[in-house]
Amino acid sequence: MTRHVLALTLGDPVGIGPEITAKTLAEQAGATDHHGVAVGDAAALRRGAEAMGLDVEVRAIDSFDIEPADGVIDIVDTGVLGDDLPEWGVVDKRAGQAAVSAIEVATRAALDGKVAGIVTGPINKEAIWAAGSKHLGHTEMLGELTGVTKQDTMFVVRNAAAENHHLRIFFTTRHVSLRTALDQINQELVGESIRKAHTALQVFGVDHPRLAVAAINPHGGENGAFGDEEIVHLTPAVQAAQAEGLDVVGPVPADSVFHQGLVGRYDGVLSHFHDQGHIPAKTFDFDGTISVTVGLPILRTSVDHGTAFDIAGSGKAGHGTMLSAYLAAVDYAPYVENIRATYAP
Amino acid sequence: MTRHVLALTLGDPVGIGPEITAKTLAEQAGATDHHGVAVGDAAALRRGAEAMGLDVEVRAIDSFDIEPADGVIDIVDTGVLGDDLPEWGVVDKRAGQAAVSAIEVATRAALDGKVAGIVTGPINKEAIWAAGSKHLGHTEMLGELTGVTKQDTMFVVRNAAAENHHLRIFFTTRHVSLRTALDQINQELVGESIRKAHTALQVFGVDHPRLAVAAINPHGGENGAFGDEEIVHLTPAVQAAQAEGLDVVGPVPADSVFHQGLVGRYDGVLSHFHDQGHIPAKTFDFDGTISVTVGLPILRTSVDHGTAFDIAGSGKAGHGTMLSAYLAAVDYAPYVENIRATYAP
Repeated sequence: MTRHVLALTLGDPVGIGPEITAKTLAEQAGATDHHGVAVGDAAALRRGAEAMGLDVEVRAIDSFDIEPADGVIDIVDTGVLGDDLPEWGVVDKRAGQAAVSAIEVATRAALDGKVAGIVTGPINKEAIWAAGSKHLGHTEMLGELTGVTKQDTMFVVRNAAAENHHLRIFFTTRHVSLRTALDQINQELVGESIRKAHTALQVFGVDHPRLAVAAINPHGGENGAFGDEEIVHLTPAVQAAQAEGLDVVGPVPADSVFHQGLVGRYDGVLSHFHDQGHIPAKTFDFDGTISVTVGLPILRTSVDHGTAFDIAGSGKAGHGTMLSAYLAAVDYAPYVENIRATYAP
Repeated sequence: MTRHVLALTLGDPVGIGPEITAKTLAEQAGATDHHGVAVGDAAALRRGAEAMGLDVEVRAIDSFDIEPADGVIDIVDTGVLGDDLPEWGVVDKRAGQAAVSAIEVATRAALDGKVAGIVTGPINKEAIWAAGSKHLGHTEMLGELTGVTKQDTMFVVRNAAAENHHLRIFFTTRHVSLRTALDQINQELVGESIRKAHTALQVFGVDHPRLAVAAINPHGGENGAFGDEEIVHLTPAVQAAQAEGLDVVGPVPADSVFHQGLVGRYDGVLSHFHDQGHIPAKTFDFDGTISVTVGLPILRTSVDHGTAFDIAGSGKAGHGTMLSAYLAAVDYAPYVENIRATYAP
């Protein structure tokens, strides 16, 4: 049996990252077919484990290639902070340096094939800027480290009631205003998004993907009575993709399509706005919804929440999303060669 | 103990209405504190009960004031069709007449205080037009029968994990295109929608309602980085309502606010577009989400699905939404005097 090794970056060491990483690794420590290894400062992970009241040994290692041991959670120690840990929950330059360093080490390990993928903990923008990084966040950092210019997001939502099924949600537009998004939508962009979603589903293990395209207007516009985006942009884009042989349907009214996807009718749904895809995912399973970055030559999953400085160090942080992100990375680890081959820059 | 009597209109008698009504009434037949009585043609309900394979007696009555009996489901027989029932699943003028007649009888009974409220089954627009009605649907019919000109929708979503809590979702705009909705949104309309939602929550039994207002743009616009509707319209409307003493917060990012409401933080969420409120409700609980009409001087709940002519008569229809609509009417029956007093035209 192959044992997939995944690297989990601690994120900002004074946020909740060390706590939720420690708890996730402690819970998964007995697994035989995968091994999660933290990346960051060993002292920070140790402090996180203590804050969570975990009875585990934190073992500082210098190589990802190590035999897991009972009651032990492993960390490739980047040694930025040493034993001098900054205060919980306060923006700190050294904490920012540590966060950046962990991402660099983990990403290089993934590029070199030393780990199957990376799971990234939450970082603080101001801290990484204080540390001299010019990047806005993970996306820009990972882009530079891997040489990739365009990344997309794939949400993964599990439905406990539909065995072995999870729904993947894609986005035509994302971090723009709703009005700008409406202005950006056209047949070409939707067609490109359909093709990218179809490719991603195949890369991530669905041989014959069934994709649905959400509508934009109420009831899918009711034949133009409430808006014409369906008639002008969406339907022609779907028809063109069908003509290319893709199994894609739509536009499907957006208040039904996510339910239908979750019960198993589709493998993926293309949403058109940030909230159109976020609302169903997070309302259905707030803690279980995780994000996979599509377009990088490495496997990367991440939590969709922040550093929660207000509760960092209190042991109160929920680790559910980090655990889901880790388990998604484990699920997708077998496809890492597909990912590398498809998305090499 | 008061026994609340609710009237359930069959809807179009050749759609799935008779089947889902029969099954709902059969399941609830043993209840002691409420009594559901169908309104329509007894022969149609009997045919529906047979199609669903139910072992019940269908009793035709002429008054809502009757003692329930074991193994019996009751119908106030409007006698439009007699024993000559039109074919399942085909648009029919007489079926349309029967649907209209049932709504009239049930609504008058509610206005006269003979029933605590009405639960409406799905109707077919073309059938009621064929029958000579000029109305678009229930809204227009109920408006005329009760003398009300403006009605709103309140969605009710239950969360089995949060005991005794259900979330109510309101709408600033509804059956218009997304672009038109964006154009219609302004501080005044949002302020009016906040006040109407607050009133509705009180009328329907929440003494001190906690209301949240959803944002429009991703991340609530991130201080204007992705759209300014939050700054220009939503925040001022929320602040004005707070200044009037209402317990209202927001704008809250729309991908969190419904989750927060469902776990108990809010009694109501004001959404701004049809799909913004429909997506979370129907993704969270497709069959359990029901609609309450706000603004009528009577209690009315309804299913949010259609007549499903394609499966009518097959016994395949799910009755979950009709059951939820009935149980919501039972829940709200104690507030019928509030409803009458507040929304008298």
